[in-house]
Amino acid sequence: MARALSHIHGNPIFHVPYTPIPTRQCPSNLPCRLFKVTMSSNQSYWTSINADIEAHLKQAIPVREPLSVFEPMNHLNLVGGHRDQALPAASALQLMYAASFAHEHLPLTQSCRPKSEIQHLYGPNIELLIGDAMIPFGLELLAVSDDPTQKNSDRVLRVMVEITRAIGSQGMVHGQYYEVEYESSCIRQNERASEKYEGTLHGCVAACGAILGGGSEVEIEKMRRYGVYIGKIQGMIRRDERKSKDLKELVEETRKLATNKLSGFNEAKVEAISKLF
Amino acid sequence: MARALSHIHGNPIFHVPYTPIPTRQCPSNLPCRLFKVTMSSNQSYWTSINADIEAHLKQAIPVREPLSVFEPMNHLNLVGGHRDQALPAASALQLMYAASFAHEHLPLTQSCRPKSEIQHLYGPNIELLIGDAMIPFGLELLAVSDDPTQKNSDRVLRVMVEITRAIGSQGMVHGQYYEVEYESSCIRQNERASEKYEGTLHGCVAACGAILGGGSEVEIEKMRRYGVYIGKIQGMIRRDERKSKDLKELVEETRKLATNKLSGFNEAKVEAISKLF
Repeated sequence: MARALSHIHGNPIFHVPYTPIPTRQCPSNLPCRLFKVTMSSNQSYWTSINADIEAHLKQAIPVREPLSVFEPMNHLNLVGGHRDQALPAASALQLMYAASFAHEHLPLTQSCRPKSEIQHLYGPNIELLIGDAMIPFGLELLAVSDDPTQKNSDRVLRVMVEITRAIGSQGMVHGQYYEVEYESSCIRQNERASEKYEGTLHGCVAACGAILGGGSEVEIEKMRRYGVYIGKIQGMIRRDERKSKDLKELVEETRKLATNKLSGFNEAKVEAISKLF
Repeated sequence: MARALSHIHGNPIFHVPYTPIPTRQCPSNLPCRLFKVTMSSNQSYWTSINADIEAHLKQAIPVREPLSVFEPMNHLNLVGGHRDQALPAASALQLMYAASFAHEHLPLTQSCRPKSEIQHLYGPNIELLIGDAMIPFGLELLAVSDDPTQKNSDRVLRVMVEITRAIGSQGMVHGQYYEVEYESSCIRQNERASEKYEGTLHGCVAACGAILGGGSEVEIEKMRRYGVYIGKIQGMIRRDERKSKDLKELVEETRKLATNKLSGFNEAKVEAISKLF
């Protein structure tokens, strides 16, 4: 397995076309190539976060081409706290997302998903194992980040609960269930899948940032709701290729709900975080 | 997903034939039916452990037909500590094993595994998601078992590291990798796969019991090695249908190594634990 895993975390397994594919893309509705995400605005900010995650993953495993980027540091910045505290959580979430991506593109018999367009470097048994290995590895990274001398173990465990819930049957898996069980692409179906998949994931990211940054319970829940709305918007836009009027209205409505959740935070920080999205 | 998951943890998904199947069975080389394990000896002991795990899983999720049994309590008993402390870890490990079982029997195109003989209640996409949901759910159960007032969070996190390592690319996944990558069934290949799959799993179980029971570092490592040897024996016997002379010699040799690891423990306890295996 070591050989295969060095490739997993090393040479990327999945060659994702640069042009966004309709079934699923890299995080945050961004164009992606080989799990690497770029962004047109705030490039330097994202580049620096990406570099931190790369460094963290490189330290943990031999990496030549690192995995992509995530954004919990934004939320951490919002409530206070340092980026270093969030890196293990961000890296764990990145691996969870990569595992989910790998499994979503497995060639299953009688699959109800459209045929995957990505290029597979390994056989299906190995690609299944790659995803199966990434989930515990991400959580292991988070668990070993605990430093008992800092008396922070309960906070790390809380983040663990957040992540396991977000990636499981109450979150991402639930969203994927909607995708495979319901073929209809009506706006309500789109909304449900987006809220569960991208919404829960972004909500988790935001809540983890707030927890690790020492936010209050009120702040944590506000950040979670903000993340859910933002993720939901991204999911809805990605899933609805027609960009209908109904979609635009729903996005606008959700954006207002998201903004409301930031009330009470320092005004400059709210502006900064809103700009990032 | 809720509907599907209530079936997962409720009505068993996979109808495993009562006669052991050659590809993989329920834990500990036992005959199994619907994930439920029975044992010919020490029936009352195993029944009581099974009942505890059932109760724990029932409390966490709506369960009608519970999942099967695991044995960390033996190891806990060996170093001291109460069964209650080990239940979340035992339940987590049980779910990890069930998830691995589900994924091992997925109908993949171009799979290099022999065609699965189990009966599938769901389509392949859902069965993939079921496994994907079980892994984080098991770890969530463990993380939420932490009671910050008991100042035990670092110990729970340590168990989390043990489990994530055992189920990932350094353990079970590594063993599965040998299974799918090497078709040869020579005794050395059998030994490698057994050491990684069953060995690491049982070693983890034993180490977790010792950690949660408050064992010393020396005790934890002794228990881990003991578990690795015991698991390895079970795996080798399961994989080698011919029961060759070479196998018998290797099993005997490994059994001696296992027994040696119990030196230093209370004699009565050693006898009790040895009897259980």
